[in-house]
Amino acid sequence: MKNSGKKRNRKINWQYIFAPKVVAVIGASNNPGSWGYGIMKHLLHPTRRKIYPVNPNAAEVMGVKSYASVLDIPETVELAVIVVASPRVPKIIRECVQKGVKAAVVVSGGFAESGDEGVKLEAALVEVARQGGVRFIGPNTMGHADTSSHLSTLAWTFDTPPGPVALISQSGNYGHRILHRGMMSGIGFSKFVSTGNEADIHFADYLEYLAEDKDTKIIAAYIEGLREGRRFFELAKKITPHKPVIVIKSGATRASAEAAMSHTATLAGSDEIYSAAFHQAGVLRVEDDDELCDVVTALLYQPLPHGRKIGILTIGGGLGVMSAEACEKEGLEIPPLAPATVEKLNAHLPPRWSHANPVDMAGISMAENPVIFPSLFAMMDDKDIDAILLQAPIGANTDRLATMFDSEEIKAYRRAEEKALDKLSQRVKRDEKPVFMVKPAVEFAADPEVASLFSREGIPVYPSPRRAARVLNQLAFYRDYLDSIGK
Amino acid sequence: MKNSGKKRNRKINWQYIFAPKVVAVIGASNNPGSWGYGIMKHLLHPTRRKIYPVNPNAAEVMGVKSYASVLDIPETVELAVIVVASPRVPKIIRECVQKGVKAAVVVSGGFAESGDEGVKLEAALVEVARQGGVRFIGPNTMGHADTSSHLSTLAWTFDTPPGPVALISQSGNYGHRILHRGMMSGIGFSKFVSTGNEADIHFADYLEYLAEDKDTKIIAAYIEGLREGRRFFELAKKITPHKPVIVIKSGATRASAEAAMSHTATLAGSDEIYSAAFHQAGVLRVEDDDELCDVVTALLYQPLPHGRKIGILTIGGGLGVMSAEACEKEGLEIPPLAPATVEKLNAHLPPRWSHANPVDMAGISMAENPVIFPSLFAMMDDKDIDAILLQAPIGANTDRLATMFDSEEIKAYRRAEEKALDKLSQRVKRDEKPVFMVKPAVEFAADPEVASLFSREGIPVYPSPRRAARVLNQLAFYRDYLDSIGK
Repeated sequence: MKNSGKKRNRKINWQYIFAPKVVAVIGASNNPGSWGYGIMKHLLHPTRRKIYPVNPNAAEVMGVKSYASVLDIPETVELAVIVVASPRVPKIIRECVQKGVKAAVVVSGGFAESGDEGVKLEAALVEVARQGGVRFIGPNTMGHADTSSHLSTLAWTFDTPPGPVALISQSGNYGHRILHRGMMSGIGFSKFVSTGNEADIHFADYLEYLAEDKDTKIIAAYIEGLREGRRFFELAKKITPHKPVIVIKSGATRASAEAAMSHTATLAGSDEIYSAAFHQAGVLRVEDDDELCDVVTALLYQPLPHGRKIGILTIGGGLGVMSAEACEKEGLEIPPLAPATVEKLNAHLPPRWSHANPVDMAGISMAENPVIFPSLFAMMDDKDIDAILLQAPIGANTDRLATMFDSEEIKAYRRAEEKALDKLSQRVKRDEKPVFMVKPAVEFAADPEVASLFSREGIPVYPSPRRAARVLNQLAFYRDYLDSIGK
Repeated sequence: MKNSGKKRNRKINWQYIFAPKVVAVIGASNNPGSWGYGIMKHLLHPTRRKIYPVNPNAAEVMGVKSYASVLDIPETVELAVIVVASPRVPKIIRECVQKGVKAAVVVSGGFAESGDEGVKLEAALVEVARQGGVRFIGPNTMGHADTSSHLSTLAWTFDTPPGPVALISQSGNYGHRILHRGMMSGIGFSKFVSTGNEADIHFADYLEYLAEDKDTKIIAAYIEGLREGRRFFELAKKITPHKPVIVIKSGATRASAEAAMSHTATLAGSDEIYSAAFHQAGVLRVEDDDELCDVVTALLYQPLPHGRKIGILTIGGGLGVMSAEACEKEGLEIPPLAPATVEKLNAHLPPRWSHANPVDMAGISMAENPVIFPSLFAMMDDKDIDAILLQAPIGANTDRLATMFDSEEIKAYRRAEEKALDKLSQRVKRDEKPVFMVKPAVEFAADPEVASLFSREGIPVYPSPRRAARVLNQLAFYRDYLDSIGK
């Protein structure tokens, strides 16, 4: 957490960064597989703005007239995307200044992350840009995107679906990994930025902007080391009461901290200090992209639980044992059932049910599926249960059902299930008790029809009890934090 | 780890359990969704033996003539599968004794796991069976399977693919979960048994049998608590020098231990004692079904590493940081590169590569893919590297490639990749240096064509560095253990 100390010399006009009207790509290329090709391709599709390729060796790039220099472009350029060899970058920025370009994205690598020569080159780049008043992302960035303005300077990733999550990443590749993992979980993004070496615009600048961005409801981040640690934590404290902030902070171990230093020239800092500071600022610290996307999914669709007491409803004893263990290892509790809950469950379940939490429904068959929802509702009525982890064959796929039932029976079964799921989602909201589904076996809920049924009702489906338990722990921490500050 | 103390009165004839010629299903049913229906369905498909349904209320079950009692069956029954209400089970076993049935699978629940009445009922069941010399699986079992004899008494799981892994599970549902997870990872099974309450045949009996079973190369298990702890560990010590034994042991926390007690009436025991004992016997203890299948996949296809020093080869700095951290958290090391390795890598990689382990190839593009394999081979030459974690766009899917290359280019690219993968798999075996692939982003290696390319060459593909690191740690432990006993 070192503070650069140096003042940066002009307010950032974010409009030019995230929604520019005219973009130049300096280093645009017709060579498939190159960065200059990938970036052009994504900028041109769909074309919502003027795109000017700059390449002195081509008359056209992807069918668009190319210019030898940014100086030759016949109108004002708001954003320049620069993807040329690093030694040429300061000169290019000088031309951008001369042209009156408002902002830049320096994709080129080979700066502070690559040794002494690179450090000098980066200093030269910053000097030129500051004198000329050009604010820039990078260098050594993999680009950025804004789904509402349909802008993408990414070279390698297809269209990102729009949604309420902004992602700031100090690694381009790891940022892409989170984006792809998120897309697979049905998460949509408002903005994405790979911050690169942060020679000009810092992590904290993006955070400050996203705090006020109306398209962004949740801020997610991958952090290797913060140049402005204090500013980050002051901002975070102001943001978390209104928008959840979820971060992966890497570099906790020796080799990973060294790798971070060589990657984006950042000091990883003391892991304990980071952890304590995240905790104090109500920032959710997660381990990896899986956990990040799991937590985001829950925050998007589920309420925060009022406490750490988890009810487990399962079709199998072993599943219950493994789920209880996963929850307890995360510091969650498995409370006893209230007598009234036991009575209600007695009315639905076969006599052999476990009569305790975890509630093992004890070998109910597919044909007895209708008992699952009444049992679940009975557990939600229990005032000593704050959230429920469900492992039951709800939403079993059609192929499997077809081995046991005829098509009319399956239709009736589906209708009953949809109705019950709808009621469940109302109960979840009303009682502020999250319900997470964990697949009892991999094939349940594997077909897209079932997956969409669950996501439509906002019930997250996690692949293992461990992942569900981790999320419940994060949500309980956040609820505690909000309570502690009177929110 | 309590020891029952009681002598059991006859040698188990495993032939009758795993490859019986004649099977009776007592409680067979025409009611889809019931256990008696599911079990019949799986036993009849494919029919490799005589199956006799017993159900006094049906003339036929699934088109097969039904009998009112096992006593009415017109030939010798080797195995009886019993799926009737628990109070009727002792009487049924008495009839089996009278009929000369050799062995049984008591699927019915409602015994020791369900309270005082059940404990008495289980004692009565054991008494009758011992007097009559009928050995049995269960009660409270979800059945068993033998892929070489094409036998399955499972009610809910489709045909299990044959293979070298045997699975013993003290939970039927969790056992099924492992089976399904395994199938998704391409793991085949020799035998499966859900041990239930182990009133007669104990966990250790299955272990003893599988130690000698020629179809079984790896033994996997889910354990809640062992009735014969000492016998288990003595057996395990004899087995692990020849066959890996991999276990999930649950019940480490308060509520999970209580749930295990109510589930299969077993005492979870002290977690520290189990851990120490597993360690001493060379048993690989894993956390859950994901880790179990990840470790099995590695043991099936990869050599054991000679040490804990991991080389990381990645296309992105952030990926390298996260991988190094995951490895170090598992107690693995990220050693410096030998000068010769740096020199070789200099010849292949752009000047900006990290010049250290993790090897960040620093923004190589898809078009530069051919540098990945030479870099990988350079790292395998380094005598200070015991295993490699690879995060690179090898096997990128066709749809993605098609956005950049024409079809002839893609074909050439694929051919080169297949050739390199073939060479890699030879190097892995020759040098005894495992190579694990971790997907850089979710979409890489997502298409079946690519997945089969990797599995054909025996290179495991894991979804996250954390999962790869866990497996490397397990393999390094096992290699250490074998060294310590001179194997």
